[in-house]
Amino acid sequence: MALLDNLKWRYATKKYDPTKKVAQDDVDKIIEAARLAPTSSGLQQFKVIVITNQDIKDKIIPIAMDQQIVADCSHLLVFVAWDKYTAERIDGQYDYITDERGLPRGRFGSYTDRLKRKYLNQPEKENFIHTARQAYIGFGLAIAQAAELKVDCTPMEGFSTEALDELLDLRSKGLRSVLLLPLGYRDAENDWLVNMKKVRKPKEDFVIKFE
Amino acid sequence: MALLDNLKWRYATKKYDPTKKVAQDDVDKIIEAARLAPTSSGLQQFKVIVITNQDIKDKIIPIAMDQQIVADCSHLLVFVAWDKYTAERIDGQYDYITDERGLPRGRFGSYTDRLKRKYLNQPEKENFIHTARQAYIGFGLAIAQAAELKVDCTPMEGFSTEALDELLDLRSKGLRSVLLLPLGYRDAENDWLVNMKKVRKPKEDFVIKFE
Repeated sequence: MALLDNLKWRYATKKYDPTKKVAQDDVDKIIEAARLAPTSSGLQQFKVIVITNQDIKDKIIPIAMDQQIVADCSHLLVFVAWDKYTAERIDGQYDYITDERGLPRGRFGSYTDRLKRKYLNQPEKENFIHTARQAYIGFGLAIAQAAELKVDCTPMEGFSTEALDELLDLRSKGLRSVLLLPLGYRDAENDWLVNMKKVRKPKEDFVIKFE
Repeated sequence: MALLDNLKWRYATKKYDPTKKVAQDDVDKIIEAARLAPTSSGLQQFKVIVITNQDIKDKIIPIAMDQQIVADCSHLLVFVAWDKYTAERIDGQYDYITDERGLPRGRFGSYTDRLKRKYLNQPEKENFIHTARQAYIGFGLAIAQAAELKVDCTPMEGFSTEALDELLDLRSKGLRSVLLLPLGYRDAENDWLVNMKKVRKPKEDFVIKFE
């Protein structure tokens, strides 16, 4: 099905059937869509955590406003972003890019110097505002990929990022949690949203033209 | 083609053929993918501006780090987000949602009250950090839709948001610019990036598992 049809099909699932598991191949494709996402300067400032451990999923319930879906889902994805920029992170990615392209390291040196001048002179808080934004691009693509595979998911921001960072020990890895994406299969009989009309602003309210 | 194939096909186009225009039907589909994007609490905190006016596109060149692509592209999309939350914006969207679903207005009143308590007690700056993030979801889906249609595009953050806000008079509309997405067709002979390998971190560096 075309992307638009997939986007119309999907909805923010509110109740999962905990007995139904998503096939590993499908989970891999959903993560792959996020991995292929474009990011600012190609730095890939975010990663994806996959949680299938039931004990950890259960511990996330109180962190996520008591929403049972984080435990009932098949796989819980956590989109996490770099806590800040460092010279090592920027150089590391560009060394990898030049190596992969068979170019001499430093080929993009004037560009990475510019990035370092910009980001390393910003407060860490500003850095994270920027890295977190990149996670949302991959998040959108993962949602689209899930829909293509007819896997249900629930885009979620409603959780304590601080508590989740602590539970998963993210700060020691230089990462901070940004978004949750439970994956699984709907329990249609018990999902209040499944039969409600998808509503979006009409196009004329969404688009502004300068012709 | 499947989403993953489309994502592998696309790249951040660095040189457009200014004589080739994207068909209106394709532009409409790209915008539609953004319109269908999920957003936090379903508020659709962002809009898309479509610029085909050549004079305005030319004026954006110096605002966008002298990158000619904003003028050579066929259609320049600007993703803009709400400058802040207001009770009117929250209520307006939920009145629209309930009307469209044939539900009484106020059906989600306790939820919108919670949103208002949260957002209206935050500084405007915090509000915008949140609204801008939503634009990135739609941005990712627009990029995916362009790739499905074999329309080239260039995800761009490198521009002065303040100068673009002023040029397009966005602040008077309660909006702020977040992202640019030129659309068009590559000038392959003159695009330095087109034949370079797409590089992404290997999967083992991108994924963390809790099993």
